[in-house]
Amino acid sequence: MNTSTVSSTSPNARRMHLVAYMKTGPTALQSGGWRHPEAPLNFLDPGFYEDAARTFEAARLDGCFFADLFGIADTYKGLAPFLEMGGQNSYLDPMTVLPVMARVSRHLGLGATVSTSFHTPFHLARSLQSVDVLSGGRIAWNVVTSATDLEAANAGMDGLPPHDERYDRADEVLEACTALWNSWDEDPFVFDRERGLFADPSKVHYADYSGRWVRTRGPLPTPRSPQGHPVLMQAGSSGRGREFAARWAEVIFTRAAPVPDMQAFYADMHERLAAAGRRPEDCRILPGVTVVTGETDAIARDRAEYLERLEHEEYQQAYQSMIVGADLSRHTTTEAVEAARGTAGIHGITEGFAKESAATGKTFAESTRKMLRDHAIVGSPQTVADRLQEMFESGCGDGFVLMPTTVPTSHEQFCRLVVPELQKRGLFRTEYTASTLRGNLQQP
Amino acid sequence: MNTSTVSSTSPNARRMHLVAYMKTGPTALQSGGWRHPEAPLNFLDPGFYEDAARTFEAARLDGCFFADLFGIADTYKGLAPFLEMGGQNSYLDPMTVLPVMARVSRHLGLGATVSTSFHTPFHLARSLQSVDVLSGGRIAWNVVTSATDLEAANAGMDGLPPHDERYDRADEVLEACTALWNSWDEDPFVFDRERGLFADPSKVHYADYSGRWVRTRGPLPTPRSPQGHPVLMQAGSSGRGREFAARWAEVIFTRAAPVPDMQAFYADMHERLAAAGRRPEDCRILPGVTVVTGETDAIARDRAEYLERLEHEEYQQAYQSMIVGADLSRHTTTEAVEAARGTAGIHGITEGFAKESAATGKTFAESTRKMLRDHAIVGSPQTVADRLQEMFESGCGDGFVLMPTTVPTSHEQFCRLVVPELQKRGLFRTEYTASTLRGNLQQP
Repeated sequence: MNTSTVSSTSPNARRMHLVAYMKTGPTALQSGGWRHPEAPLNFLDPGFYEDAARTFEAARLDGCFFADLFGIADTYKGLAPFLEMGGQNSYLDPMTVLPVMARVSRHLGLGATVSTSFHTPFHLARSLQSVDVLSGGRIAWNVVTSATDLEAANAGMDGLPPHDERYDRADEVLEACTALWNSWDEDPFVFDRERGLFADPSKVHYADYSGRWVRTRGPLPTPRSPQGHPVLMQAGSSGRGREFAARWAEVIFTRAAPVPDMQAFYADMHERLAAAGRRPEDCRILPGVTVVTGETDAIARDRAEYLERLEHEEYQQAYQSMIVGADLSRHTTTEAVEAARGTAGIHGITEGFAKESAATGKTFAESTRKMLRDHAIVGSPQTVADRLQEMFESGCGDGFVLMPTTVPTSHEQFCRLVVPELQKRGLFRTEYTASTLRGNLQQP
Repeated sequence: MNTSTVSSTSPNARRMHLVAYMKTGPTALQSGGWRHPEAPLNFLDPGFYEDAARTFEAARLDGCFFADLFGIADTYKGLAPFLEMGGQNSYLDPMTVLPVMARVSRHLGLGATVSTSFHTPFHLARSLQSVDVLSGGRIAWNVVTSATDLEAANAGMDGLPPHDERYDRADEVLEACTALWNSWDEDPFVFDRERGLFADPSKVHYADYSGRWVRTRGPLPTPRSPQGHPVLMQAGSSGRGREFAARWAEVIFTRAAPVPDMQAFYADMHERLAAAGRRPEDCRILPGVTVVTGETDAIARDRAEYLERLEHEEYQQAYQSMIVGADLSRHTTTEAVEAARGTAGIHGITEGFAKESAATGKTFAESTRKMLRDHAIVGSPQTVADRLQEMFESGCGDGFVLMPTTVPTSHEQFCRLVVPELQKRGLFRTEYTASTLRGNLQQP
C-alpha cells in the first residue's frame, strides 16, 4: 500500500463502502422528486451525468450505479401514471452514459443494470468489458434477471420464464461471460513493428461454453481490463436470489428494511459466502438507505416534509405494481396478486408485503404504501452519521447504497454534509487507495 | 439557410459528402498498417477516439463510422493470423466509443456497425437512440446482417440463416425499430412542477410490432432526438442487399471498384430509390476510396511503397477468407469456395471475385489478392483532388468513404492536405450548415 494515500486514521480501521443509486431520469424512488426546485431536468444531456460523476468522485464514493427497466412501466393503469407523474423511467440506456462519466473521473466506480434475460452472453460480456477497458477498470454490472412481463414483451417473448428458471439461466449467462472474459490472458500484446508481431496468439483462447440455455464460442475480441473484468453486483433477496448472489456477487444491494432484518440478511449471506468458499471482503453487502439531511435536524425534517408534499398519492401503488407484477388498483389481496402476477414480480419484495399484510391485517395493496419512506433517515449530518455508524457497527452491512430523493441533488447534499462527518469519524476514506473499482471495494 | 455559414462559392453547388472509415483497433483494410511509425497503438484508450473525432470535425467531415465484427476472424487457419498480424479486429464494442467521441465534437456524425441478426430490435432501437439523444442527433447505424459463421457461433446460433432470409429478418428489425422510434411524438415533456405534470402521455404510443421473426411491444423509454432517430447506413451490394438499401439506407457505402462499376451501381441505386419513392438527397451513395497522399506525387508514391513493405503476405488471404466465408488456404476454386461457405459470406463481394476469376483465368483465391489496393489513389493533394473530382462529377457517387491506411493518422493527412484543396475548388463545405448528421447529409 502506498502510505502517502492513507488517511490520518488507522489504515486497518474498517471503513464503509458507499455507492450512489441513480436512474437515467429525474426521479428515483422518491415520488415527485423531479418537482423539487433543486432537481435538474436535463437528464437527456450528458452534462447531467458528468456533474454527478464529479460530485461522487470528489466525495470519494466507491461508485454509483444505474437501475434500469427495459421499457416503461405500465402494470398499473397503463402508461399514463409513469409518464404523467414523472415516474422512475430509464430514459437512456445506462450503458451509453457510463463512457461519458468515465471521461470526467479517474477512480469512481460506474455501474449499469443489465438483464441476463434479453441479450446474448457474448454481447453482454463484450459491451461491459469494452467500457471496463475504456474506464481503466471501473465498471460494475448490476446483474438482474428481470421480473416484468412488459420487459419480456418488449424483447419479443411470450412472457418471463418462471422465477427459479430465470436464475438458472442467469447462472449460465455468468458462466459464459466469465469464460469469455477469461479468453484473454494478461499482457497479450507484443507490438513488435519491426518483426510485424502484433499479439501473442497463445494468450487468446476459445471460450467454448455450452449450457442448457446459452452457448458461445468466443474468444471475445476485447482483452482484460486493469481489474480483469467488470465487478458483479446483485440484489436478489429470495432464497434462489441469495444462492445466486453467494456464488457471483461482489456487491450485494439490499433494499431498505428494519435493522433486525438487515442483520439477519447480513449474517445469512456471510454463511452462504463461507459455504461457497468466499471471503467476506470478496462481497460487500450494502443496504439501501434514503437520507434527507440539512444543516440542522429541524431543517432536515422540514425538508423531508417538503418532499412529502411533492408526492403523488398514486405513485407508490403504481411503482409497487411494477415490482410485484400485478395492477394493485385491481388486485388488492395477497391471493389476488399471486394469481395475477403469473411468472412476473420480484419474489423477495412480494413476500415481504405478504408477510406485513398477514401481520397487520392490512390488505396486500395497503401494505405496499410508504414501505420505503418508513426507513428514511432524516437529520443533521451528525444525526445521519450516528445512525449510519450504528447500522454499520451492528452488522447491518459493509456500507450503504445511497437512495436519492432528488437526482442528483440529494446526493450532492449527502456528499457535502454527511461524507465529511463520516470521514472525521474515520468511517470513510479520504482518498482512493486503489485505481480500480474492485481494488477499492476490497479495501478493509 | 443561415447565409453567414455559407462558404464563398455558390450555396447551390453540389458538394461532396465525406465519411471516415474506422475500426476500434489500429488496422483497417491496410495490412500491417499498425507497423507504420506514425500509427498510434493506444486503441484501448478513449483518447485515441477523441483525437480522431477532433481531427474529423476540424476538417468538417460529415462523419466517421466504425466497422465491426462480432468476434475475432478465424476463418483462415484459425485465430493466429488475425492476432499475430494485427488484423482488423474490433477490440472494443463500437457503441461504447461513440458517447466519448460525441463529447469532444458538436457537428460530427458518429456511426457504429451493429448486426440485425444478434440483438432484439428493442435493444437496438434503445441503445442507438440513447446515443443519438446524448449526441444531439448525430448518430448513424451501419446496418449489417452479418456474414460469418464465427459470429453466429459467438451468438449461440448453429449457423447463419440463408442470405436472403437474413435480409428478410433485417427488414423486420428495421420495421420494428422504426415503430419504436416513432412511439414518441415531438415535445412530450411538460415539466410542470406546480401541477406535477411531467410528460403528456398522449404523445407516447405502443409500437405493437409483430413480424415473422421479431416482435416488440414498446413504447421505447427513449424520446426523439434532434434528428428524430439515427441515420441508417448500409453496404449491401447483392441484388437483395440493394433492394434493402433502396428501402432503408440514407447512406450507402460501396467498396472500391473500377469507375464503370461505380457508375453502374450509382445509376442502378438511383433507379431503385426512385421506384421506392425516395429523392436522391434522401440517400447518399459513397464509394470507398483509399488515398495515400503527401506533399508531392513523389512523396505520396514513396509513402505508398513504404506502406506496401509493411504488408503481411498472408493478410489479404486471411481477410478475404472471412469476407467470402471459406478458408482460402484450403479452398481455391470458385466451386470449392461456394461449397465450403454454406450460408456464410458476403455475396456481392464473392460474386465479384468469381467474375474476376472467370474473366482472367486466375483461381478464385488468386483473384482475392490486392483487390482493394488496386484502387488506391496515390498522389499530391492536387492529384488526389483531381481524381476525386473526376469520380464525383462523372456519376460515381455523392462523395466518398475514406478508407485509412494507418489509423487514424492517414485520415489526418487527408484532412490536412486534401480537404483544403477540395474546399478551394468549392467541392466540400468549409462550415457545417446543420446541427444534425441527417441535416448535413441532406445539404446539396
